[in-house]
Amino acid sequence: MFAVTVRDHIMIAHSFRGEVFGPAQALHGATFVVDASFRRAELDADNIVVDIGLATAQLHEALADLTYTNLDDHPELAGVNTTTEFLAQLIAQRLATRVGDGRLGPHAGGLAGITVTLHESHVASASYELTFR
Amino acid sequence: MFAVTVRDHIMIAHSFRGEVFGPAQALHGATFVVDASFRRAELDADNIVVDIGLATAQLHEALADLTYTNLDDHPELAGVNTTTEFLAQLIAQRLATRVGDGRLGPHAGGLAGITVTLHESHVASASYELTFR
Amino acid sequence: MFAVTVRDHIMIAHSFRGEVFGPAQALHGATFVVDASFRRAELDADNIVVDIGLATAQLHEALADLTYTNLDDHPELAGVNTTTEFLAQLIAQRLATRVGDGRLGPHAGGLAGITVTLHESHVASASYELTFR
Amino acid sequence: MFAVTVRDHIMIAHSFRGEVFGPAQALHGATFVVDASFRRAELDADNIVVDIGLATAQLHEALADLTYTNLDDHPELAGVNTTTEFLAQLIAQRLATRVGDGRLGPHAGGLAGITVTLHESHVASASYELTFR
Amino acid sequence: MFAVTVRDHIMIAHSFRGEVFGPAQALHGATFVVDASFRRAELDADNIVVDIGLATAQLHEALADLTYTNLDDHPELAGVNTTTEFLAQLIAQRLATRVGDGRLGPHAGGLAGITVTLHESHVASASYELTFR
Amino acid sequence: MFAVTVRDHIMIAHSFRGEVFGPAQALHGATFVVDASFRRAELDADNIVVDIGLATAQLHEALADLTYTNLDDHPELAGVNTTTEFLAQLIAQRLATRVGDGRLGPHAGGLAGITVTLHESHVASASYELTFR
Repeated sequence: MFAVTVRDHIMIAHSFRGEVFGPAQALHGATFVVDASFRRAELDADNIVVDIGLATAQLHEALADLTYTNLDDHPELAGVNTTTEFLAQLIAQRLATRVGDGRLGPHAGGLAGITVTLHESHVASASYELTFR
Repeated sequence: MFAVTVRDHIMIAHSFRGEVFGPAQALHGATFVVDASFRRAELDADNIVVDIGLATAQLHEALADLTYTNLDDHPELAGVNTTTEFLAQLIAQRLATRVGDGRLGPHAGGLAGITVTLHESHVASASYELTFR
Repeated sequence: MFAVTVRDHIMIAHSFRGEVFGPAQALHGATFVVDASFRRAELDADNIVVDIGLATAQLHEALADLTYTNLDDHPELAGVNTTTEFLAQLIAQRLATRVGDGRLGPHAGGLAGITVTLHESHVASASYELTFR
Repeated sequence: MFAVTVRDHIMIAHSFRGEVFGPAQALHGATFVVDASFRRAELDADNIVVDIGLATAQLHEALADLTYTNLDDHPELAGVNTTTEFLAQLIAQRLATRVGDGRLGPHAGGLAGITVTLHESHVASASYELTFR
Repeated sequence: MFAVTVRDHIMIAHSFRGEVFGPAQALHGATFVVDASFRRAELDADNIVVDIGLATAQLHEALADLTYTNLDDHPELAGVNTTTEFLAQLIAQRLATRVGDGRLGPHAGGLAGITVTLHESHVASASYELTFR
Repeated sequence: MFAVTVRDHIMIAHSFRGEVFGPAQALHGATFVVDASFRRAELDADNIVVDIGLATAQLHEALADLTYTNLDDHPELAGVNTTTEFLAQLIAQRLATRVGDGRLGPHAGGLAGITVTLHESHVASASYELTFR
């Protein structure tokens, strides 16, 4: 199995609901350094997993409505605890949609799956792994 | 599949027995930067894999009897080659025990597995991956 | 010249005023990974620049009222653009105060200066360097 | 499952054929920081996955004909798009051959697989995962 | 003294002349992860060292004719050993020119200096530090 | 001012004397990732600060009697608190000696200074900066 990974980042404000979150129930924020990893069983005719230029551009677009915002005010995320693991899934699903509608290029249909990892600090990260049927 | 990873470190002395270890048969030491990764198929009602505060605290406790010691003198490790890969397994098993007895929180029973990675330098690391039944 | 550096982090929300900040004028947030570096011309009698345990603890305390907050609501920071470079200076000055009143240990009077660096992402950081006397 | 990972690097020139590569069709170059990860279900009698000295040395040898070259002129790679993902596979297969002929030590027959990851910059990497039957 | 640092990268081919370079006399290549650090004694009225958006954009432009090329064929670099340290100086000087002609913004005249660091692998880097007047 | 930096590492056991060291008074150990940085005002005729091959080899030799040892038993270090900052100075002085006797090459006489940084974990490091007269 092959994988290609590209990196971008977002800088957001948010707050959490639930005692489990302790001080993070208050409005605070985070930089998430986002790694999007595309998996594929065999390389295509160009010897690539995915067009890395498209992968980078599509990841950037998939993050565009999130960065420099307060996620608590985002219409799609109303009432949601936007934890690092939840955001990893959200971004992976957005990328999967873009694979499905051809924005990752004509050969991206051969992709086996996507893993998105968000690094929230030098001591914590979360990821979501999605497999195409 | 989701994962959440937290980081801590230990600073230990030890020595190895066996020609395969070459100069590392002598008493020496290491800093191990320890990444503990908790996997879960679905998020819980708070949208988390595990309480990251508990995960960080329990990892720290699981390392407490190891750091600032000579592992050669540790009662649990007498006569054992405490290689990086062995220690990764030891720490993963300790964390699994803590999941089992509730110290990672009431929802941690939903965890699918734990991977522990020990970085021993900028050029070497080892890991152990454990899956719950 | 010697230096010892310790690392911690904060997760904050804030917004900026001024066209130069573009989209960062909106409420957003950041993780700042904070490196505090203490300089000293000669080592003390214990062969150290500073008690690294105290340095770590004092850095953590100097950050305590900032992390998990919206800096726009912080009484000390009302109307201030809390840029990465400004926060580096604020934290360096707080550490200098703690050196001055003995919280970094009795020998910390021999320190020559402090540099604080804040990493806001994998592609940007800022620092402030302060020299005593 | 256990894993041990060692790191080395190569510095190469190459060019690509195909519109998908855009400006990378021109002769350019890359540093690839190479992580070779060896997997094993159970530790051997010495409590190791693989002799880390041999793993490091064999990785270095497996890279020796690639580094400080123009891959476009390499006899084995004539007419091949030497993408990061392709090179990850090439290096993994070379290491698998070395496992097979005993150069990774007499116990390396117990290895379950190899993953090779090439980091081409701070924002992009590729990997290939190989499983022994 | 304050500093703000932004990061970009280039991927180039080149060769060296001189026995001191050993195998690097052959055509090979490198990824250079480039950190450009801007220093300033006092913050401007917006509490910044430099407009980080402009700094990032100008660094990218200053690298544009270098990336995805063979430096041996670059008209400005004919017959030059394009070592990591030489390139650090070249990029620092290009950024200084851009400060001088206003492309880093109207307040960039207050900058005290620029340091450019090029990371060529996980084990080697080079830098050039330039001070204005 | 130019600088070139190379990296290596050592894995050692040691203990400290003095209450300030707390639990580190017990025999423990560390991996020190060692960065040796060579400074020079002007490049030599080959456009380099120092022969990077010699710098790497000489750093490795300067560390050879330290790695895989218990520093408490090292004849040169008897009764010494081998703190990270002390070791940074020791290694810088050893490299300075090697510059002085020509082992860094015939042009190394033009070097302005050496800085050695030891990273002891992901959250702590120490350095020593030495300037040639």
